[in-house]
Amino acid sequence: MARIVMKFGGTSMAGIERIRHVANLVKHESEAGHEVAVVVSAMAGETDRLIQFCREASSLYDRREYDVVVASGEQVTSGLLAITLQGMGLNARSYMGWQLPVRTTAAHSAALIEAIDVAVLDRVFQGGGIAVIPGFQGVAADGSVATLGRGGSDTSAVALAAAMKADRCDIYTDVDGVYTTDPRIVPRARKLGVITYEEMLELASVGAKVLQTRSVGLAMREKMPLRVLSSFEDRPGTMVVSDEELEDMNMERQIITGIAYDKNEARISLLGLSDKPGTVAAIFAPLAEANINVDMIVQSVARPGEKRDLTFTVPTAALAQSVDALSRAKEAIGFDEIITDMNVVKVSAVGVGMRSNAGIAARMFEALADRGINILAIATSEIKVSVLIPEEYTELAVRVLHTAYGLDAETEA
Amino acid sequence: MARIVMKFGGTSMAGIERIRHVANLVKHESEAGHEVAVVVSAMAGETDRLIQFCREASSLYDRREYDVVVASGEQVTSGLLAITLQGMGLNARSYMGWQLPVRTTAAHSAALIEAIDVAVLDRVFQGGGIAVIPGFQGVAADGSVATLGRGGSDTSAVALAAAMKADRCDIYTDVDGVYTTDPRIVPRARKLGVITYEEMLELASVGAKVLQTRSVGLAMREKMPLRVLSSFEDRPGTMVVSDEELEDMNMERQIITGIAYDKNEARISLLGLSDKPGTVAAIFAPLAEANINVDMIVQSVARPGEKRDLTFTVPTAALAQSVDALSRAKEAIGFDEIITDMNVVKVSAVGVGMRSNAGIAARMFEALADRGINILAIATSEIKVSVLIPEEYTELAVRVLHTAYGLDAETEA
Repeated sequence: MARIVMKFGGTSMAGIERIRHVANLVKHESEAGHEVAVVVSAMAGETDRLIQFCREASSLYDRREYDVVVASGEQVTSGLLAITLQGMGLNARSYMGWQLPVRTTAAHSAALIEAIDVAVLDRVFQGGGIAVIPGFQGVAADGSVATLGRGGSDTSAVALAAAMKADRCDIYTDVDGVYTTDPRIVPRARKLGVITYEEMLELASVGAKVLQTRSVGLAMREKMPLRVLSSFEDRPGTMVVSDEELEDMNMERQIITGIAYDKNEARISLLGLSDKPGTVAAIFAPLAEANINVDMIVQSVARPGEKRDLTFTVPTAALAQSVDALSRAKEAIGFDEIITDMNVVKVSAVGVGMRSNAGIAARMFEALADRGINILAIATSEIKVSVLIPEEYTELAVRVLHTAYGLDAETEA
Repeated sequence: MARIVMKFGGTSMAGIERIRHVANLVKHESEAGHEVAVVVSAMAGETDRLIQFCREASSLYDRREYDVVVASGEQVTSGLLAITLQGMGLNARSYMGWQLPVRTTAAHSAALIEAIDVAVLDRVFQGGGIAVIPGFQGVAADGSVATLGRGGSDTSAVALAAAMKADRCDIYTDVDGVYTTDPRIVPRARKLGVITYEEMLELASVGAKVLQTRSVGLAMREKMPLRVLSSFEDRPGTMVVSDEELEDMNMERQIITGIAYDKNEARISLLGLSDKPGTVAAIFAPLAEANINVDMIVQSVARPGEKRDLTFTVPTAALAQSVDALSRAKEAIGFDEIITDMNVVKVSAVGVGMRSNAGIAARMFEALADRGINILAIATSEIKVSVLIPEEYTELAVRVLHTAYGLDAETEA
């Protein structure tokens, strides 16, 4: 007997027919003798509908009231799943965030989970029951409803699994696992049987949107094994585990686990920077103040006394704000010109095996150069090499790298 | 300065544009210096949508979980109205049923309000704020969400007004007041400036669906003045007050206040009843056990030893169940045949002035006889005379009685 959390996303909860299918998956685990808590998202599209209402009501909507409105989506699916499970003869009940409670910070619309009281759940399990819990929501210290931000239900599930001391957290979604890259671009992409938290974090943060980044980070800290699997197909899925657990599995390791890409990057170049101390600090201080994440910084080398250039990327959504902040600081920084480019993509090769293998980056540059793809910027971490290239080469670059790192499956998916 | 509750129904809350209009009405009262609590319904159609989900999830849905699902509709509109009011520069906040709290019985989907804690509201008003409260919902002693049943938002508003010791409770709806009869049938129907609770109860229970019956009963017990008015048109509306207040107003009183009709009645006749003691009790006992409300009972007069007939009405929705209960008790009752008829309507003349006026019923029978309308059953109360007639005569009967009691306006509405 295991204690598990099963989490279902919006596509899995979109309508009664799908909720009934979810109930069957829950029934299967419950009848296998497991103690099951289910975390659900709102029906696909519902949260967007509710957010749209808030925006129409006031462009500067109050985040506390926004939370009251959007938390209703998960409330509905929780009640409906409990009803459906009961209709199948199972002992199920829903518990809203304020009922358990799931205690959060007061940062409305972007709250963090502080603690989850599982006393109620322990009683439910002792009585052979199933608990259905809305993801994405909790209650702040002042008794107000607070939500965790978009995609927060994954985090709710992992936090609940940790609080329950669950054996694992199963994330059911509309894909059947984590792939070596986007199968829409590379038909020979392979589903990974297992991946480490770190690799998953890098793949998620560079554009493979299977799991919310925050939830993977939390699972890593809590050492909570995750399983990503399809709610529509009965297949094994992908396990997300720690480096040590992966070692213990004693599997043949690929050096590179996957190729990710992220079109949500914009390039900013500052030309004609004066070569004086403090220039770089003067550039990044106003961006940091505006909470803009800067990535992939490339500084041109200059001879003493000569002007030079600096290139970096920011999220596309923050481009206008970044240019504005830099322009206002033009005097302090001292530059001639700002050039921006949204038609860029960041392509990354990710893998924990990279740590012990030289030449990974070199193979990437070579493969791209062979196809005449110009590299605009490079960034590396312990388990990742990323390049910024013109957006029009996205598919070509992903395919070339997938082949270059030996990731292609023998047959197309 | 007054303390008032403003209640807005689903049609008034259907979409952001209408919510903005509602916010303007609230702003107007707030800026006039009043202390305002607003009670809102779900957007028109939303509660039906949510109920439909529950039914699809399981035909025998758990009422506790049903309440979790349907309470979300008012949660959404509360948050949206608070956002809209804030967008207009007002200090507004929503308080869910469990937050105030609004304490109810545990009778899920048909809960009764037991107490409303207004300590939070007193603080809100002291700070010059506006409270937005979802109608229809509260919290049971075990911490579960409980709803009051369809139309419960009117009751929420009156209960809140009583708890707040409000000066009045304004019910904004999609009609501009209470009319002498249905204006779709009688174009010369007149809007009533004032009506008593008792009259309103009789008009509501016989089919004039402006206010939920329970809310009028509660207002009567609490002596809470109600005002029914349109949220779409700026007109005076109808005041609902006690008999004594009406006397104090010293207005010229009509004997009959209005003509109502109710098609939601079905007739049952039991033919060939044996004339023995206890027969009537044997008929109504199984119906009472099944919680079926019996109305308009007519017993045929029979000579001793002869068989006789009994006719009565039940709500159309309870017809099949009634026939079933009676058929199973056929032996105990002793009758030859059951005849049923759904094509009947109950038409009623209502008015507190009736108490001091003889001949009211006679005028009704005469007016209907003049048009050849056959009366199938008669029922009277202190302030009401009702007749059961074939449904096809509904409009004719209502028009004839409206004229006969001198209710016609000089011009069409």
